[in-house]
Amino acid sequence: MQHYNKDDLTKMDQRYRVQLINSLSGFKSANLIGTSNLAGLHNLAIFSSVFHLGASPALVGFIIRPDSVARHTLDNIQQTKTYTINQISGSFWREAHQTSARYLEQESEFEQVELTPELHQCTRAPFVKESRLKYALLLKDIMSIPLNGTQLVIGEITDVICEFSAIKPDGYIDIESLDTIAVSGLDSYHSTNRLSRVSYAKTDSHPTDIPLDGLLAKHQP
Amino acid sequence: MQHYNKDDLTKMDQRYRVQLINSLSGFKSANLIGTSNLAGLHNLAIFSSVFHLGASPALVGFIIRPDSVARHTLDNIQQTKTYTINQISGSFWREAHQTSARYLEQESEFEQVELTPELHQCTRAPFVKESRLKYALLLKDIMSIPLNGTQLVIGEITDVICEFSAIKPDGYIDIESLDTIAVSGLDSYHSTNRLSRVSYAKTDSHPTDIPLDGLLAKHQP
Repeated sequence: MQHYNKDDLTKMDQRYRVQLINSLSGFKSANLIGTSNLAGLHNLAIFSSVFHLGASPALVGFIIRPDSVARHTLDNIQQTKTYTINQISGSFWREAHQTSARYLEQESEFEQVELTPELHQCTRAPFVKESRLKYALLLKDIMSIPLNGTQLVIGEITDVICEFSAIKPDGYIDIESLDTIAVSGLDSYHSTNRLSRVSYAKTDSHPTDIPLDGLLAKHQP
Repeated sequence: MQHYNKDDLTKMDQRYRVQLINSLSGFKSANLIGTSNLAGLHNLAIFSSVFHLGASPALVGFIIRPDSVARHTLDNIQQTKTYTINQISGSFWREAHQTSARYLEQESEFEQVELTPELHQCTRAPFVKESRLKYALLLKDIMSIPLNGTQLVIGEITDVICEFSAIKPDGYIDIESLDTIAVSGLDSYHSTNRLSRVSYAKTDSHPTDIPLDGLLAKHQP
């Protein structure tokens, strides 16, 4: 096994270190965040830091650097308090990656990378038409992380739009059937193969495989 | 497409809603966090909320509920300021899932689920011997998220231990070759298949596939 200590990490070439450290957290979610400024110009940016924060209220967080190429996303969210998160599928992951190029503020990434904005009455922020699972959020908080100058943006989910067939009877969404992809490091994209769904862990038994449809086949809502 | 609005989400059966909302962020990382209390008793808990926060300093965050089954992890980190994060591989994901059972404070999940604690001089927190990529952290901050009572735990990476063959010449770690797995929803586990690594996006060109070894084959450190 290779062992890097803190001294090794400090002395590493900067680009090498960025690649290495970005690989440590494991597989990351791949999402496009859609926003609009007050003048109605759309923006679209890829993020690999979107994470679940809670189901009740339904909260999702993501990390942004105010000085990064994604700063227009933060500006727009601060202006309009709304944004959309769109899962990235195998059919458009290259276009999604291309949104990370440094386009000008007046250029819409939708046009530049050839993805299609989709507007719904529920929000002024654009969805990605090509995305098979997407949701609208209302900004709830932006927390500064003084340790490195990043910001944690927290939104409450107000609307969910998803292909019906992927929603299982117990509420689980089979995102693998939507061909949702995952990211590792800075630039590697991956499709998935299900190992299994497993039962809730209890101290007196081993977890068992459960059907994809879940154990409680209760059609909701 | 199925469209749930905020009213639908509010009225949903609680368990259905938890499954649905947990599916929205996309694929999640799968990690075991190892800690020790001041008396030296080990604790091990699975987390799907570990995320990259920055490379310089090397920071990683995760979300914890103080009232959850994982509360001993938080207690131990507060006591000792140290913990380990261990990527979960295909060979022990079922054991990893089992750590989420509600074991008593005096029971070590290592023993209960039959994973092996591995001690190194660099930290008092136990690593998981079976893990092929793991790292030690020093607690830097615990930020309360008032919106739902969760806590964001931020640590700085002090040591990285990884199978040598997975570390590519540009610093990228091929976590797929380590059989690192991903999570969706609450209880679904997935292996991955690489689509490709791609070049840094520029406004004047389309991203191209790059070799697994990266473009800058520079052996470091």
